[in-house]
Amino acid sequence: MSEQDQRHMKRALALARKGVGKTSPNPAVGCVVVKDGRVVGEGWHRKAGLPHAEVNALSMAGSLAQGADVFVTLEPCSHTGRTPPCAKALIAAGVRRVVAGMVDPNPLVAGKGFALLRKAGIMVEHGVMEAECRAINRPFIKHVTTGLPYVTYKCAMTLDGNIATVTGESQWISCPDSRRYTHRLRAAHDAIMVGVDTIIADNPQLTVRHVKGRNPLRIILDTRLRTPESVGVLSESMAPGTIIATTESNPRVHLRYTQQGATVIVCDEYDGRVSMVDLLQKLGKRGIQSILLEGGSRLAGEMLQNNAIDEFIFFLAPKIIGSDGFAPFTLRGITSMDQAIKLQFGQIAHSGQDIIVHAWPAEAACSPA
Amino acid sequence: MSEQDQRHMKRALALARKGVGKTSPNPAVGCVVVKDGRVVGEGWHRKAGLPHAEVNALSMAGSLAQGADVFVTLEPCSHTGRTPPCAKALIAAGVRRVVAGMVDPNPLVAGKGFALLRKAGIMVEHGVMEAECRAINRPFIKHVTTGLPYVTYKCAMTLDGNIATVTGESQWISCPDSRRYTHRLRAAHDAIMVGVDTIIADNPQLTVRHVKGRNPLRIILDTRLRTPESVGVLSESMAPGTIIATTESNPRVHLRYTQQGATVIVCDEYDGRVSMVDLLQKLGKRGIQSILLEGGSRLAGEMLQNNAIDEFIFFLAPKIIGSDGFAPFTLRGITSMDQAIKLQFGQIAHSGQDIIVHAWPAEAACSPA
Repeated sequence: MSEQDQRHMKRALALARKGVGKTSPNPAVGCVVVKDGRVVGEGWHRKAGLPHAEVNALSMAGSLAQGADVFVTLEPCSHTGRTPPCAKALIAAGVRRVVAGMVDPNPLVAGKGFALLRKAGIMVEHGVMEAECRAINRPFIKHVTTGLPYVTYKCAMTLDGNIATVTGESQWISCPDSRRYTHRLRAAHDAIMVGVDTIIADNPQLTVRHVKGRNPLRIILDTRLRTPESVGVLSESMAPGTIIATTESNPRVHLRYTQQGATVIVCDEYDGRVSMVDLLQKLGKRGIQSILLEGGSRLAGEMLQNNAIDEFIFFLAPKIIGSDGFAPFTLRGITSMDQAIKLQFGQIAHSGQDIIVHAWPAEAACSPA
Repeated sequence: MSEQDQRHMKRALALARKGVGKTSPNPAVGCVVVKDGRVVGEGWHRKAGLPHAEVNALSMAGSLAQGADVFVTLEPCSHTGRTPPCAKALIAAGVRRVVAGMVDPNPLVAGKGFALLRKAGIMVEHGVMEAECRAINRPFIKHVTTGLPYVTYKCAMTLDGNIATVTGESQWISCPDSRRYTHRLRAAHDAIMVGVDTIIADNPQLTVRHVKGRNPLRIILDTRLRTPESVGVLSESMAPGTIIATTESNPRVHLRYTQQGATVIVCDEYDGRVSMVDLLQKLGKRGIQSILLEGGSRLAGEMLQNNAIDEFIFFLAPKIIGSDGFAPFTLRGITSMDQAIKLQFGQIAHSGQDIIVHAWPAEAACSPA
């Protein structure tokens, strides 16, 4: 890969990042059209239903696209979805060469876009800055390859590892800057997930308020259907975006939730609780690509033990609560250090008075998103 | 302060830092001699008993010191200690101007060095980059102004706030890089302090092994004299550097430790345990300026509640142990978030696989040392 190519792909990545968290169920994609060494077109995918990155960039380039080189973070699509296939648009524009960051991760279409282009006589290269191109679409890639949602666990805790005092008080552990960041995270996810104990204890709204952005779906893990009908997430305006996951299969018992507009998902039982594996499969089938797991301890512990957490974001507050507060993960039985669950750290940064610590499972391919 | 002055003081600070952690009971000091805008002499204090920074810098400058400007991080001394007073050396060298970072914090001599210089017709300025100059000598300043040692709490814990598993296993939470860093910290402190439970559980050597440096004293908090005579810190070579703090006043009971060469300090009792206040005063009187507090939970909790910790260094390991491990601070009774003990974060950095988080009490003047 030449330095020029890398520079253009970096620009395409920067464009793609403008769409990250806003394009679901589509991936974020960026595209740059280069003619005689000069950038003549730029585009990115803004939102599902709107034109793809390639189409935006070609439209900006106009007739200059003829004979141009195109840099795009993901293989151009070959099928007609809500918009016509980008591979055909590139062919129609008469481009000379297409450099892609990565192959389409969807096994059903992978390589088909490239094949179309090659058949039309266009030079194709791919794998340029692939790690970076993959990093911006982790949820999309996980969902399309496994059918499961990508789960990010977010947790605000004191420096000594408490998410609440002994009485359950947790407002507020983190500072206003961190809480705004959390709302940005919410807006970038398809759904938020919490356990019913968190609903009962805090009656959280689980909405995006401190920043602009759409409200994600709300998933409540509630094996025994203990969610009170009076909580905020079951209010008239909120209930239609709320999903309750239970093992209770009697539809008559569901009525008190479904009548308010909420959705109830019946899952397999595992160890007396909702099976995480079954629940995540069911959520994936509903097209939910990304979940922000916001606690509490027991749900986080179960998700961790099921290797269901893909990414960790800890807000550490400069506060000490002591030894009788609540731990972020309810997990028992780890007696020796080699049984500890291993993560790897990513970025660390200050966030107002707090610090943010990113982490990944130790075996994951960790990279700066 | 001119930009020139600031630049020279920065250099003096950089020189002073070479001595940090090595000069106890003296402060770390750096000095630059500037003649006609050109640096003609540099020096720093390397070790108690060796020449002071000013003397080293003047010696390098030689006859060029005549009419020169001198930048020194701390007020030149006016009294004869193990070396002759620096103020006299500056007068003898015929310097024109002395710019100091800060006044000597020792209330008994503060300002006397400047007075001597002024009396000899030398221009004196001070307070240039004072915060930075204070930051490199926090232990010295605290000890000379309060008589108490400066306490740094160091702790290796998992990301979820555990310093050991439920069985007490803690080897190893942190990675080799962090453990080397800990040994550098040890070498830079006058003493290490641990509770007797840590001695019984881990039988630690509490020595400097992974880096070059002198071994600090070892202080064991042992109210009821439970330290076994067979432990490493009471071995023939180590016992003379080991201090046991107890409330047991019968000297005949002390014999089993003093016969091995260890020192026993009898402290006041508070709440059935060694009084932290009394102990720190006694250690301060022995000339101990800096203590690295290495745990365990109960001792750290008591020190925290007594506001006796001046600085916090947490090594966070990318590991999860769960909810039945040991907390860094045994502290109970904090039920609401506004009762939480407030800190402020300083530097954060990666350290091998771990991250290092520096913190200070919230009310402290925090600055990058």
